[in-house]
Amino acid sequence: MLLNSINTPADLRRLSRPQLKPLAEELRGFVLDSVSKTGGHLSSNLGTVELTIALHYVFNTPEDRIVWDVGHQTYPHKILTGRRDSMSTLRQQDGISGFPRRAESEYDTFGTAHSSTSISAALGMAMAAKTQGSDRHAIAVIGDGAMTAGMAFEALNNAGVYDDVNLLVILNDNDMSISPPVGALNRYLARLMSGKFYAKARDVGKSVLPAPVLELAKRLEEHAKGMIVPATMFEEFGFNYIGPIDGHDLDSLVPTLQNLKNLKGPQFLHVVTKKGQGYKLAEADPVLYHGPGKFNPTEGIKPSASGKLTYTQVFGDWLCDMAAADDKLVGITPAMREGSGMVGFEKKFPTRYYDVGIAEQHAVTFAAGMACEGMKPVVAIYSTFLQRAYDQLIHDVALQNLDVTFALDRAGLVGADGATHAGNYDLAFLRCIPNMVVMAASDENECRQMLSTAYQYKGPAAVRYPRGAGIGTTVQKNLDVLPLGRGEVRRDGRDIAILAFGSMLAPALGAGDKLNATVANMRFIKPLDVELVKQLAATHDALVTVEEGCIMGGAGAAVSEALAAAGITKPVLHLGLPDRFIDHGDAGQLLAQCGLDAGGIAQSIVQRFGKDQPRLVVNNG
Amino acid sequence: MLLNSINTPADLRRLSRPQLKPLAEELRGFVLDSVSKTGGHLSSNLGTVELTIALHYVFNTPEDRIVWDVGHQTYPHKILTGRRDSMSTLRQQDGISGFPRRAESEYDTFGTAHSSTSISAALGMAMAAKTQGSDRHAIAVIGDGAMTAGMAFEALNNAGVYDDVNLLVILNDNDMSISPPVGALNRYLARLMSGKFYAKARDVGKSVLPAPVLELAKRLEEHAKGMIVPATMFEEFGFNYIGPIDGHDLDSLVPTLQNLKNLKGPQFLHVVTKKGQGYKLAEADPVLYHGPGKFNPTEGIKPSASGKLTYTQVFGDWLCDMAAADDKLVGITPAMREGSGMVGFEKKFPTRYYDVGIAEQHAVTFAAGMACEGMKPVVAIYSTFLQRAYDQLIHDVALQNLDVTFALDRAGLVGADGATHAGNYDLAFLRCIPNMVVMAASDENECRQMLSTAYQYKGPAAVRYPRGAGIGTTVQKNLDVLPLGRGEVRRDGRDIAILAFGSMLAPALGAGDKLNATVANMRFIKPLDVELVKQLAATHDALVTVEEGCIMGGAGAAVSEALAAAGITKPVLHLGLPDRFIDHGDAGQLLAQCGLDAGGIAQSIVQRFGKDQPRLVVNNG
Repeated sequence: MLLNSINTPADLRRLSRPQLKPLAEELRGFVLDSVSKTGGHLSSNLGTVELTIALHYVFNTPEDRIVWDVGHQTYPHKILTGRRDSMSTLRQQDGISGFPRRAESEYDTFGTAHSSTSISAALGMAMAAKTQGSDRHAIAVIGDGAMTAGMAFEALNNAGVYDDVNLLVILNDNDMSISPPVGALNRYLARLMSGKFYAKARDVGKSVLPAPVLELAKRLEEHAKGMIVPATMFEEFGFNYIGPIDGHDLDSLVPTLQNLKNLKGPQFLHVVTKKGQGYKLAEADPVLYHGPGKFNPTEGIKPSASGKLTYTQVFGDWLCDMAAADDKLVGITPAMREGSGMVGFEKKFPTRYYDVGIAEQHAVTFAAGMACEGMKPVVAIYSTFLQRAYDQLIHDVALQNLDVTFALDRAGLVGADGATHAGNYDLAFLRCIPNMVVMAASDENECRQMLSTAYQYKGPAAVRYPRGAGIGTTVQKNLDVLPLGRGEVRRDGRDIAILAFGSMLAPALGAGDKLNATVANMRFIKPLDVELVKQLAATHDALVTVEEGCIMGGAGAAVSEALAAAGITKPVLHLGLPDRFIDHGDAGQLLAQCGLDAGGIAQSIVQRFGKDQPRLVVNNG
Repeated sequence: MLLNSINTPADLRRLSRPQLKPLAEELRGFVLDSVSKTGGHLSSNLGTVELTIALHYVFNTPEDRIVWDVGHQTYPHKILTGRRDSMSTLRQQDGISGFPRRAESEYDTFGTAHSSTSISAALGMAMAAKTQGSDRHAIAVIGDGAMTAGMAFEALNNAGVYDDVNLLVILNDNDMSISPPVGALNRYLARLMSGKFYAKARDVGKSVLPAPVLELAKRLEEHAKGMIVPATMFEEFGFNYIGPIDGHDLDSLVPTLQNLKNLKGPQFLHVVTKKGQGYKLAEADPVLYHGPGKFNPTEGIKPSASGKLTYTQVFGDWLCDMAAADDKLVGITPAMREGSGMVGFEKKFPTRYYDVGIAEQHAVTFAAGMACEGMKPVVAIYSTFLQRAYDQLIHDVALQNLDVTFALDRAGLVGADGATHAGNYDLAFLRCIPNMVVMAASDENECRQMLSTAYQYKGPAAVRYPRGAGIGTTVQKNLDVLPLGRGEVRRDGRDIAILAFGSMLAPALGAGDKLNATVANMRFIKPLDVELVKQLAATHDALVTVEEGCIMGGAGAAVSEALAAAGITKPVLHLGLPDRFIDHGDAGQLLAQCGLDAGGIAQSIVQRFGKDQPRLVVNNG
């Protein structure tokens, strides 16, 4: 086994060129075996095996910097950079991350996970190297899906003017983001590829145009002085464009990269790979094999007989039902058809389905434009990705009080994907925006009710719900709405009132049982049910707020603000996520470690207010 | 006077074509006269006179929708759509806005102010029209500067695939955003323009290529089957590209637009205009005349003998001094060299100055990349524009705890620019992010100290400061730092402790004098000086927090969280900006109306706690 001898890229670089191909086979097998045992991202990692080998073979890592866009394709990179044995701990608590992490390895030069950051980061590194008088290279590896996000273009636009920067952008064109690609850029790349594999190793450094065409182009250029000459879009951005080349052919990759290494200025290499390469089942259905759980590689992924509905499914069903009831509804996703549960909606309502690409900013303002004309847009977006469209939400939607519904999946901790994907800040960053309505679902049926409520509300409204399955409540099929800004008491107790938001209702009820405390399901973060807060304050010794989100500025803070505004002084305990980034692991375990299970909530209350008779703490003021 | 007869675009459309040119002259004169009396944006409005006339002449507004990107170029549009007389109230309280506003006129189809939203919004409108079976047109007018922002590309990428949508994108190419333009796209547009004004009215609808070139191109295409043929980048995005044409030539504009009106699918018209057109002084210095105050049009803008330093100048001076002291410092601006006070820095340290274009997302991640390599980036960005880079701040900077300093100008209310530019949410949306340090400056010297403090802090840190001049404190020249997370008591009083954040210190001290209250300058929103909060709670009957930012989730909420965490119950009054968008007007007056001057703060305290003897309110729990 060659792979066993590779503990660092330096070991790799001692191999002969002919040894790379068998190494790639071993590496691909290792990835498949490893992911089938731990779960994780598969298709994208099978697609980057050769590219990863070639990069570490040609470039002097870690001195040369590789930034992997999105980062879920870095398993081969991790395996070759000293983390082969750690792959068994992938995405598990205290194990290695499914994404590059600076704290994990000096080879992980930049933490990625959200898409389209790599060119900006690599350009920053390259400019720093230039300033420092260093010759080291900075390399961004970015997929064609990620290229549709605006910030990738912002970076290209900025990079293209630096004629002397050691920047290499590698477009890993696999005709796939997580969902199949959309948009004009993808059509353009397809046209580029229709002249596929022109530039083999020996043509590197020259134009991809064959000689007679070059000549014609030259004549054209002379004729039309100042007009545009044939060039790829990337050349128009100031890059030297090479490609497309076969990203699974080491005999193309290695010499091409070796030549590129010697060129100055911004370089752009267009590499074509296949997601799932080498594993027939993944090649045939790369979306299914994008991020599987554990499976038997021989048999492939089996349809799981899962019992409980996921919140994603609840949303997808609601979307179809509401669309059937109201033909003004349009559904918008930034390239997350599968993840957001919109496969069924697209099938049933293809003309009302908009996948706008990895383009959260555009998605939200596009929705705003639609809302101006009386359509009723529903934007399905993960909580963590809404951060990308924060300004658009404030400036284009909320300021104009436009009627847009936001369905925020993956709110709170997300488990294996870790800190980069956690939706911990939405309550804080949404509720400070005027005109917003913000709800958090405590179970599946309430999620549906809240979606209907948000939809019927004539203004911007967001519903957040957790990743994965709910608690198993039956989802009613109607489209009834909840009273705006009203919570409900779910358990009558004494002394202590627990004000639970969203997913924390279930553990709060558990804690309420342990302590005989009152438990309210607050439902609305904004408008907060101030009357309920006052009533609970008037009838209890202390209030406890619980939310699956950051304490700072979150729903608990809203309760304190309401008390202050009402002139009520009352002991309050804020429970929620602490002020630190929380790494990957089992979501339930992580929540428990944050004290957000029933036992933890009860314990925090007892610690603060005493065991048997919760009472006012001494006012030490 | 023709202009006096135009009360709606329908009046305009009754004019003959030859009357449009004299109308344009009148309109240009009116704009100059009007802006010289009220202040406002000038250069950009002088540049769009003919384009505005042509658009309303050719298209059936308001049924056809015009979306003006950025929107500060819409004075001619406002004048032609029934707001001629209201121009004297421009940007004043209860007067008309300096930007398009849906609430102001049915001709203002979409509120703009932040850049690069127009294509997304217009595409949304166009898709809605298509869904509704309407033939109406949607038109986005976007500048070349605004085209560098990622979301414009996201929108182009999405729009280009809709072959049957009534969308017209007009690139108003004036080779200028607010600062002179940067980046590869601008170079590209310059190349496009080197063959300037090819397409006159009679060529419209055809390619911009002259016939022999077209023929050559065709041969080239045949020869190189599947290769790229000459096309502009915009054609590669799926648009039909026309231009460039002279945007001041009504004889080009009107027939071109008339022809475009009859074409289906996404159209792209490249128009070349000159900022300041027709007013020599503005043509010569469009940056100076970008957004002047009142001036005498005959004499032009006179250098003002202003006494007080602006916070922007304080930042600019500090940046130069710190750069001189530390060669690791790099300064980054997203196209706001003048606005952010970086003109001097660019002159003194050209190789350490980065204007990345209107590209806030890229600016922040580019800074993160630099910080990875040991550089010390300072990102100068308006509070309101940081909303554009929120995800990058969380995911790329804070999560990796990278050492980036954020200088947030225009925090709080901004006056004449109104709600779109207000920096009211930063304290709420920043303090919930782990690892962040967040400060608010109460005077000029403290602003400098805080910038030094943020810079020396080894992690992400932000300093916010208001628009305009400070209170007149002398700025010391040293680079001393403040103790991290420590506030200071500025006035010793009794009963009530006012905890002032940033710009609210001065009025809080005024209120303190009136009430003999204690006043603390809290300085840090995060880490909050919890010890000081506890101490003030222990020695006073009630705490009052004051901030120039939203109350929801803001600094006051942080104080309540700290009290709750410490188990302290104490009456608290949160003063700050209310939960609504605040329109344009004089910033001082607006603050007073929000109760945030000395009198208002004192009054709120008295109302809440009683006149002479502030005491605990009755605990009604």
